[in-house]
Amino acid sequence: MKFAVVGTGVIGSGWITRILAHGHEVVATDPSEGAYERMLKQVKQNWPYAEQLGLAEGASLDKLSFTANLEEAVKDADHIQENVPEIESIKDQVLTEIDAYAKPDAMIGSSTSGIMPSELQQNLKHPERLVVAHPFHPVYILPLVEVVPGKQTNEATTVKAEEIYESIGMDVLHVRHEIEGHIADRLMEALWREALHIVNDGVATTEEVDKAFTHAAGLRYAQYGPFMTFHLAGGEGGMRHMLKQFGPALKKPWTKLIAPELTQTLYDDVVNGCEIASQGQSMSELDQKRNEFLVKVKKLAEAYWPGDTASMKKVTK
Amino acid sequence: MKFAVVGTGVIGSGWITRILAHGHEVVATDPSEGAYERMLKQVKQNWPYAEQLGLAEGASLDKLSFTANLEEAVKDADHIQENVPEIESIKDQVLTEIDAYAKPDAMIGSSTSGIMPSELQQNLKHPERLVVAHPFHPVYILPLVEVVPGKQTNEATTVKAEEIYESIGMDVLHVRHEIEGHIADRLMEALWREALHIVNDGVATTEEVDKAFTHAAGLRYAQYGPFMTFHLAGGEGGMRHMLKQFGPALKKPWTKLIAPELTQTLYDDVVNGCEIASQGQSMSELDQKRNEFLVKVKKLAEAYWPGDTASMKKVTK
Repeated sequence: MKFAVVGTGVIGSGWITRILAHGHEVVATDPSEGAYERMLKQVKQNWPYAEQLGLAEGASLDKLSFTANLEEAVKDADHIQENVPEIESIKDQVLTEIDAYAKPDAMIGSSTSGIMPSELQQNLKHPERLVVAHPFHPVYILPLVEVVPGKQTNEATTVKAEEIYESIGMDVLHVRHEIEGHIADRLMEALWREALHIVNDGVATTEEVDKAFTHAAGLRYAQYGPFMTFHLAGGEGGMRHMLKQFGPALKKPWTKLIAPELTQTLYDDVVNGCEIASQGQSMSELDQKRNEFLVKVKKLAEAYWPGDTASMKKVTK
Repeated sequence: MKFAVVGTGVIGSGWITRILAHGHEVVATDPSEGAYERMLKQVKQNWPYAEQLGLAEGASLDKLSFTANLEEAVKDADHIQENVPEIESIKDQVLTEIDAYAKPDAMIGSSTSGIMPSELQQNLKHPERLVVAHPFHPVYILPLVEVVPGKQTNEATTVKAEEIYESIGMDVLHVRHEIEGHIADRLMEALWREALHIVNDGVATTEEVDKAFTHAAGLRYAQYGPFMTFHLAGGEGGMRHMLKQFGPALKKPWTKLIAPELTQTLYDDVVNGCEIASQGQSMSELDQKRNEFLVKVKKLAEAYWPGDTASMKKVTK
């Protein structure tokens, strides 16, 4: 399996590290001045963390090569990962070139965080072999990749792509509906916008907002997402109890995001989803697992949290 | 120091566990049928996790007593923590009673997640001794407490309250401006509403949304909040680079939350805040610390994540 990585910034270098760590060959390409040196520096900085997570047999930095020539980089590749700047005209131009130079059955994954695959594939000769495969920084540590097929992507491509990403240690989230920002970045964008509002309205500083998150909810979110977190906060009643107790708060102006109507369908989707995810464990078993995790993650995080600074104005005597 | 805990549900029992674990006496009270037995069961379930985090000298479950009589519970207490249901008429009635029965210089902390302290204190004879002190579930593990003084709270009370919460192992976030939902819950509410929209629009299931969060952003958020996370994703340019690159995305409909205008003031607040929080560390030093943490927290979380279920429909062959 030969990989090509097109665009070698923070995300491209992250992919290179991950792919090398799993023992594969990578040809990297980027036309910008000094790209090779910057990429090499980053990959070398990343490497110790890939080592700590465990290298595959045969994994070596020696399997990395670089060329400024796009055609040369992609012509023999089985899988091409595109990471050029998030500007539609640039994506379009580079993907058209990759499509022209690559073997007809080579796979193309685009790392775009926001653009929908149907848009990216519309000018390709072989649109059926493109998926969005959106990773998270740092790519060589965080396991998630959102795989989003476009309207013209064929199913065999998507299956193949998901296998490839799993083979390099990733957890695939298959995104069944194309939306701008996919799923994860929409959640992060809502959080980011609310955080900006709080600072903009003069309610708190960036440090205070960050602390409000890391010292409570952030610790929980390393284990459970927003749904299971609420499920576990509901005591024996789980999500049903939470929706009864906090459903009415959806009408309050607690954020500048207008909430959806809590219809019966939405209620059922949310309650059933949490029950499925519980996989037969009782609330008490879930509670204990959460506690075990939180005790450990709290001890771990304490050593890594940024300390309070003078600007964290507490009341002083 | 004698503590009284009024209302012994999930949050009240959490406070009791934390206070006992720090070696203090607690009198608990709750008028509901079976409250004592439920509370005792919860505190006993919580206790092993308090032990793992380390008990103070003299910490013992024997220092807990219970009475269904509110007056008896609060009359000798130095600090009273109120955790009754989040309904304004109930809060108002119980706080008025606490105020009448307590020593005039006893402190009152309300665990309310949404109501502003100025509202809670308006009918009290001694409004100056009330603050909101909003904890996070599970209270005996998560360290954050948001301390919010109301218009009538005097500064000495706030200082004293913050000292008391620190003395029982908490990290105080002093909230300088009263808003409904304080700070942390506004962030969580934005995330929660966006998550509900994604499910409501049929884009993804609750399990998929949770996975999109825990397997990437959630791991990062145990260490850094939304601001420092973006600061570290910006490479050498930090937050400046991120605002240049992703500032324009604030105009996009990536969430149903309308974003604030990225004014020069907001820009400066955000960039300066991240630089202060960096405490003189270079981007590369920050990067390394983040990587060290992420490698550890990822290994830890893998053993605790809920597994994929059949409803996590990936493309199948």
